[in-house]
Amino acid sequence: MNDLKFQFKIQVFKTIPSFGPGIVRLMELVEETGKLSEAYRIMGLSSSKGWKIIKRAEEDLGYTLIISVVGGSGGGKSELTKEGAEILRKYKAFLDELDVEVDKIFKKHF
Amino acid sequence: MNDLKFQFKIQVFKTIPSFGPGIVRLMELVEETGKLSEAYRIMGLSSSKGWKIIKRAEEDLGYTLIISVVGGSGGGKSELTKEGAEILRKYKAFLDELDVEVDKIFKKHF
Repeated sequence: MNDLKFQFKIQVFKTIPSFGPGIVRLMELVEETGKLSEAYRIMGLSSSKGWKIIKRAEEDLGYTLIISVVGGSGGGKSELTKEGAEILRKYKAFLDELDVEVDKIFKKHF
Repeated sequence: MNDLKFQFKIQVFKTIPSFGPGIVRLMELVEETGKLSEAYRIMGLSSSKGWKIIKRAEEDLGYTLIISVVGGSGGGKSELTKEGAEILRKYKAFLDELDVEVDKIFKKHF
């Protein structure tokens, strides 16, 4: 069985699984592009679907992750809140360490 | 953020993610009950949905996981193949070790 691979997904949350690969990708794209609409476009998300992903995580965690300023030159701009940037950084550090450890454990068993 | 929890799901596969929590639970129930129909009932799966989960994993892995014998006293009986029992045992051992390690790494980061 040496040709087997693995794939894992991890959610971090208070009450309902809400902060995982979807919101993380969305937040990374907001950091990169500064535009929520651009993040949705790249991910192929409708704005209502994207909004649900954000609201679900914000309601579960109890704080705002992304703020948007409407208008101004070049249209609206979005960015992560301080708390949003912090949980994103923690999640990515957690994931980086997991990637290494899960791979080691996988190789022991398969 | 000390009130955060985590949840992870892991798939093991050759080409497409196919062997994860769903098929694992189904196979455990087949082991426990000896009846695929009973496993479906407990999981709230239609037989077509259950069949898809099994076929997807069997096609990806390249071997049969569950065999069923129709009829006989008390109706049909299902059981895991030797290969099915082996991958189930490996997955569960892998998961048991992961549970401990992921928890440790989570506590370091959150």
